[in-house]
This record gives sequence, structure tokens and C-alpha cells, in this order.
Amino acid sequence: MDVQAILFDVFGTVVDWRTSLIEELSGWGGLRGMQVDWTGLVDTWRGAYAPSMDRVRRGELPWTNLDALHRATLREIGPQFGLVGLSDDDMEWVNRGWHRLRPWPDSVAGLHALHARYILAPLSNGNVSLLVDMARKAGLPWDAIFGAEVFGHYKPDPETYLGACRLLSLEPGQVMLCAAHNHDLAAAQKLGLQTAFIPRPTEYGPLQARDFGPEGEWDVVAADMQDFAARMAG
Amino acid sequence: MDVQAILFDVFGTVVDWRTSLIEELSGWGGLRGMQVDWTGLVDTWRGAYAPSMDRVRRGELPWTNLDALHRATLREIGPQFGLVGLSDDDMEWVNRGWHRLRPWPDSVAGLHALHARYILAPLSNGNVSLLVDMARKAGLPWDAIFGAEVFGHYKPDPETYLGACRLLSLEPGQVMLCAAHNHDLAAAQKLGLQTAFIPRPTEYGPLQARDFGPEGEWDVVAADMQDFAARMAG
Repeated sequence: MDVQAILFDVFGTVVDWRTSLIEELSGWGGLRGMQVDWTGLVDTWRGAYAPSMDRVRRGELPWTNLDALHRATLREIGPQFGLVGLSDDDMEWVNRGWHRLRPWPDSVAGLHALHARYILAPLSNGNVSLLVDMARKAGLPWDAIFGAEVFGHYKPDPETYLGACRLLSLEPGQVMLCAAHNHDLAAAQKLGLQTAFIPRPTEYGPLQARDFGPEGEWDVVAADMQDFAARMAG
Repeated sequence: MDVQAILFDVFGTVVDWRTSLIEELSGWGGLRGMQVDWTGLVDTWRGAYAPSMDRVRRGELPWTNLDALHRATLREIGPQFGLVGLSDDDMEWVNRGWHRLRPWPDSVAGLHALHARYILAPLSNGNVSLLVDMARKAGLPWDAIFGAEVFGHYKPDPETYLGACRLLSLEPGQVMLCAAHNHDLAAAQKLGLQTAFIPRPTEYGPLQARDFGPEGEWDVVAADMQDFAARMAG
């Protein structure tokens, strides 16, 4: 196993998007006396994520980055959860909650341990500025930023996995994808990348319906990011 | 002046490619008893840089990244300076000297000071893996890596400057290019980016023929990277 670089899924694997958004937005809305069902809003917002990317993938929408998809969804679903009457600036602040997501407690320490030995980069459907803002705030030691818009494709399109290998000047077999989602790893493995699974069984809270454990022949299965780093240190 | 991100030319502006390569290769060749005119080789190698990119720009070559351009030039010019009989691995090691370039003495401290406040990224004709290797070795605090191959264009093509702004989700006026080369700043300024000039009058050694000082209406002119950081801290 000659891994030179490790790519990371971000939403759910590195950061806890659901708890981050619900807590931050509830606190912010509470201070303003807003009556919003933030939990329902966040779950529905995330639920629209895959369908909105699929519209781009099918060509129904021209290339649209994730900030713009999130913005359109937020405007569409906001009113049914009580999110009404916000200024454009406030709506933008809410939308940029995705730039301010908190890592899982083990992520930063695990990534720093891995960084001593491996090239690290996100391979995420997030846009570059979202991933840059998140990394600066959370202290994620990325060597490069591979957001979907670099390739003009969303995962699991092959252009994303192979595009990252190409930009790193590495063969797919020298690159490993780490993710909490079996379907992401399956797409990467099919293209020759190595794979590592970390379970994040509370990612979707009570709505979690899958990815409680590994469902493929992954090269590494670890308990969390620090355990993953320990396994890769050998 | 509402600068959010600063892009940096790399070869010459951040790193001292000429001294780095001549010293490292002379030491390496000396240990092997090689009779090579390393200074002549390095100067001629760099001299072929702009013409080789121009062949890509004119469409005479399909997209070719800088490692590959450097490799082709090295094979072509090596023999006239005494570089003969090397194994493929050794030739590759020599070619990857560009991944191991040393920063100017003021670069790392200046970039770290700027990083506290601004998003920083290279905007370089180097390929991504070259820039990643260099950053890891030298400790350059980049938030993202914008190498020419991300855009399929070499500077000064507009696609590079505007592509970086697009990936950062910023208007050109919110982005500044810092370079030791007036022609690079002129191309950026024409597209609406802000500009900062740092002189590197020894970049080309005795062959230096230009860029001893600012030759345009640049927004900032600084003595070196630490002075630049001090001027941007205001």
C-alpha cells in the first residue's frame, strides 16, 4: 500500500454539519426572537442537497456551485419553517452557515497526525470558498482544496476523483479516499483509489438510515479520525 | 481597499529558484563527481520556460503541465552542459528540484503574518503537485493552490487570474496579486485585480535585465514580503 495522498469527504466525515447548523442558527434566531423550526429547516435543507446536485448532473441546470444551490433551496423552503422577512444580508449569513461548520471532536487531531506523513485535501461537493473558510476557522491542515467546481462535476461523477489524482500527479492507487459514506467509497474504489471508512452514525441524528458501518471491501475501517491516523502511521 | 485574498506569483517572488537549484544540484553532482555546468544549465533551463509555455498557449502543444515542460527541456539541453548518462530516476530527481525550491529569507515570515488576516494562495504557472510539495517542504501557509493546470491556461492568460477570483467567490477588486514581475501585475490590473510589487533584483543573478523596480501604478510597492505584510496590516 503506497498511499501518497489522502482525500476526504467533508460534510459528515470531517464536520458535523447537522449539530453545527442547528445550534448556531437556533442561538442566532433566539437572540432575535425568531420563531423558526431550525431542526426541521436544516434537515429539509440537507434533504434537498442530492436532488439539487442531480439537476446539475442531468444538465437541467448549468454548472451551479453549492453556495448557490444552498441559497436557492433556503429561499424555497424557508417560509414553511417560519424563516420569513430576513434581509438579504441575513439570508446570506444563514446560507454561509455551511462555511462555519464545526469538525467532529476527533477530526482536527487526526488530520494533523496524518499531515506529517501524507498530502491531505478535501474532495468535496462544497465550493472552494466554502472549504477555504471552513479550513481557516476550524484549523484543517489541507495541502490543497479540491471542491467540485474545480472539476465542474459533483461526486460521484468520475471526473472528481480522477481530476484530483491528476492534479496531484498521482496514480489512483496512490490516493486514498476517506469517507463516512459507503456510496462515495464505492465510486472511488471502482476507479482504482484506495478507500477508508469512518462511521459517523449520528450524522443525520434521528433521521440516520444508513452508513452505520462498512458495506464494502474497504482498505481501512477505523473508529474515528484519530484511529484512522493511528492505522496509517504503521 | 477591501482586499479579502492575496494571490502570489511563486517563482522569483516567493522562492529563489536560481540559487536553490544551482546550489542543490551542484552539491548533488559534486558528490557523484559529475562534470556539469550547473549554472549554465539552470539559466538555460529557465530561459526555455516562457517559450515552452508559449507553445502551449499558441496550441502547438496540447495542455502540458510545467513538470512535463521542464522534463522535456532538461532532456534537450542537458547534454550541452555535460548532463549525460543519468538514470531515469536521477533525471526525475533533478527535474523535481523545482518542487524543492527555497523561499527568499523574508517570505515565510511575511506570509504567516499576512495569513492571520487574508486568504492566501499561489497563482503560479507551476503544477499543483509542484506547489503542494514546495509548500509542505518550505512551510508556506497557503489556503488553496491555484496552479495553471487548474485552469488549463498559463499566466498571463486572463483565465488564470479570473479563474482564481471565481473559485474564491470574490470580485477581482477584492483580490490582490503580489509579484516581482511588472508584466504579471499589468495583466492582473487590466482585469480589475489589485496589485503589489516586491522587487527581487537578484532573481536572475547577473542575467537580471528587468523588474528592478515598479513600472506601473501598483496599489502597493514593498521592499520585501515582511514589509508587504506590515503595509497590509494597517
